[in-house]
Amino acid sequence: MKAVILAAGFGTRMSAQTPKSLVKVAGREIIYRTMKILSDYVDEFIVVVGKNGKKIDNFLKDKDFNYRIIRNPNPERGNGYSFYLTKDVSGDRFILVMGDHIYEEEFIKRAVKGEGLIGDRNPAYVDLEESTKVRCKDGRIEDIGKKLEEFDFVDTGFFILSKDIYEHAESIVREKEVVELSEIVKKAKIPVTELSGYFWMDVDTIDDLKKARKFIVRSSVKGFGDGFVAKHFNRRISLRLSELLVDHLTPNQMTVISFLSGILSSLTLFFSIPLAGIAYQLSSIIDGCDGEIARASLRKSKLGEYADSMLDRYVDFIFLVVLGYVSNLSIYFWMILVFAIFGSVMISYSTEKYKAAFSESAYGAIPSLKYLIGKRDERIFVIMIFCLASLIESLILILAIWTNIRVLAILLIVYKNKKGI
Amino acid sequence: MKAVILAAGFGTRMSAQTPKSLVKVAGREIIYRTMKILSDYVDEFIVVVGKNGKKIDNFLKDKDFNYRIIRNPNPERGNGYSFYLTKDVSGDRFILVMGDHIYEEEFIKRAVKGEGLIGDRNPAYVDLEESTKVRCKDGRIEDIGKKLEEFDFVDTGFFILSKDIYEHAESIVREKEVVELSEIVKKAKIPVTELSGYFWMDVDTIDDLKKARKFIVRSSVKGFGDGFVAKHFNRRISLRLSELLVDHLTPNQMTVISFLSGILSSLTLFFSIPLAGIAYQLSSIIDGCDGEIARASLRKSKLGEYADSMLDRYVDFIFLVVLGYVSNLSIYFWMILVFAIFGSVMISYSTEKYKAAFSESAYGAIPSLKYLIGKRDERIFVIMIFCLASLIESLILILAIWTNIRVLAILLIVYKNKKGI
Repeated sequence: MKAVILAAGFGTRMSAQTPKSLVKVAGREIIYRTMKILSDYVDEFIVVVGKNGKKIDNFLKDKDFNYRIIRNPNPERGNGYSFYLTKDVSGDRFILVMGDHIYEEEFIKRAVKGEGLIGDRNPAYVDLEESTKVRCKDGRIEDIGKKLEEFDFVDTGFFILSKDIYEHAESIVREKEVVELSEIVKKAKIPVTELSGYFWMDVDTIDDLKKARKFIVRSSVKGFGDGFVAKHFNRRISLRLSELLVDHLTPNQMTVISFLSGILSSLTLFFSIPLAGIAYQLSSIIDGCDGEIARASLRKSKLGEYADSMLDRYVDFIFLVVLGYVSNLSIYFWMILVFAIFGSVMISYSTEKYKAAFSESAYGAIPSLKYLIGKRDERIFVIMIFCLASLIESLILILAIWTNIRVLAILLIVYKNKKGI
Repeated sequence: MKAVILAAGFGTRMSAQTPKSLVKVAGREIIYRTMKILSDYVDEFIVVVGKNGKKIDNFLKDKDFNYRIIRNPNPERGNGYSFYLTKDVSGDRFILVMGDHIYEEEFIKRAVKGEGLIGDRNPAYVDLEESTKVRCKDGRIEDIGKKLEEFDFVDTGFFILSKDIYEHAESIVREKEVVELSEIVKKAKIPVTELSGYFWMDVDTIDDLKKARKFIVRSSVKGFGDGFVAKHFNRRISLRLSELLVDHLTPNQMTVISFLSGILSSLTLFFSIPLAGIAYQLSSIIDGCDGEIARASLRKSKLGEYADSMLDRYVDFIFLVVLGYVSNLSIYFWMILVFAIFGSVMISYSTEKYKAAFSESAYGAIPSLKYLIGKRDERIFVIMIFCLASLIESLILILAIWTNIRVLAILLIVYKNKKGI
């Protein structure tokens, strides 16, 4: 299937120079987001550009999309005219999408299975005044426009169309100078598919941009793996931080910062154990940002995930070793510290080895694992509490027992689960 | 595609009661092996049985194969007659295979892509005197029999046939009382596909059985992940051990034995460090057997792999902790031991996390990782040497540096490899 993207519109209220489809939202250009998500379903993109077309072409050149550019020499003739220009290349059945709209992944996944105009009965993120409304009759468009008093859906700017719509487009283009897409789809009486409850919006102002960024960053938290502390405390802060940083830092830069903040917290131990506890907890919060930024800016990388998780193990190890060193532990507590350190690594090992062996996430496949406390965020929080109370020997004893019991519990739960007991 | 398996033959020279297809080779019945490997290509098995049919049916009942049994009431009429009985159920194109032949996986993988009789030009494992030879002309059978003086191939007992062969079968069955399959394929002049160099054999005597078991166990070593010591020393012993044990122990029992032998070596430390070093190295050898037995007896399980690798980490950890304890280490050496223990786990973590993140084996994907010494077999061997020399503090220092450098090297190599530097 091919996808036609209309990106011939003029500049935006935010900037006259940048085509709207090249505005960055949460670290990625709007058109890149749409194309990236669509690329699982589409084999060729047809991008219609206007006077800023060169910029769009330059932008797409080094990306990994199969696309062709169609230049609209008269963008002032409206988006219906832009669409009409694709008539010979779009194929029998194709996607049509606005280059300046932003959609969440789930929206697009479902929309590509629809037919005709994709309509939202109750859009949560758009200004209803400004949006194009649709009234239906027998499942097809009866009327469409910004000023409709009675309407069933709001036009999401996403369509699944078939070739015959170009006949209607042609007859209007012959008659009129300025042609809106809405006139064409109304004349063709295309069907309407409802798709409500997903995020999509038309980004027009700085406020829209912030709203979109906020939504995208907030929905970037992955489903499982977060412990109690991460879920109810760390994420609240890290998400706000990621919102501030997503347009400025890459996920890899964020991983390095998070690693350095972890090492810094270990160094702080030489000056003050309570302060170091707080710094360690802060680094645990910061550690959430690289993943959030990676997912929000569609920059998730396996290498990033790998490096992040290796560095986390080193941060945890170094903190405990330095903590032991500065606390003048007796030899017996060094023996116990060995168990605490081993248990901490083994918690991660037990779930990563699970994924390596079974090719599925342990937390995803075995929901009861979620209720075992002892994930990194929880351990670090407890370490902070004991550092604040200066109860280092108790901390080490607790960690040694807690982490190793948790690992044995994982082994037992995995065994029971896989044996179906 | 369906597969016809001829298993109506009488008992064997080894046992009159057991049908030959139910003889166990390396822990698995011959017919199970063939069906298990074929099940990737076959949607239904048609098993022709004779007077021992009930046993075969009982055996297959609780296995996970889609099969039907066809009873040959006159098995003395020969395997050609058995074959003829499948004429209405085998479909247009089907596999025909002898139920008493054993084939390695690679043989079957290639044979299913062939056409007609699968012939081996130079079979390495069968008695040429006893085997059925084939002479070809223009790629088709010209003559076939045990006594052929001039021949091109040996008949492997594996065929890819089409429906029209049953016409030839029928005409012979009408004429004669005893019908050999070789007469039918000769009359039908079926094509011959060469497939040489793979293991297959007809198991007839105790010696054949041993030969087959030996081959299967020896080829059960997985490609990568073995260090220098495992490759050149441990495997030589563990494979012999597995040959002895494969018919008697399950892989899981072997994992438990290997774990206990590891724990035992740690306990030995309380009596003699040099002796414990040797015991640890022995447990490292035994640790190879569970995987070998699992692969040889087609009992590979993800849960087994998971449990084995978790237990290995505990064995390694406990040995080093007890070694530290019985050596009366100073507090400084306990600090160093912490690094040695952490580094040892992290070597495994670094490759398992790799597999979890990239969904491929690290050693398979990045061959240069092979040359980094420090795999478990190599570490244990070095530990034994230092235990024998009673140089525990040097050992701990070396392990602390060696393992952590290796982990950093892995991190670096993975980074370079994934970034294409």
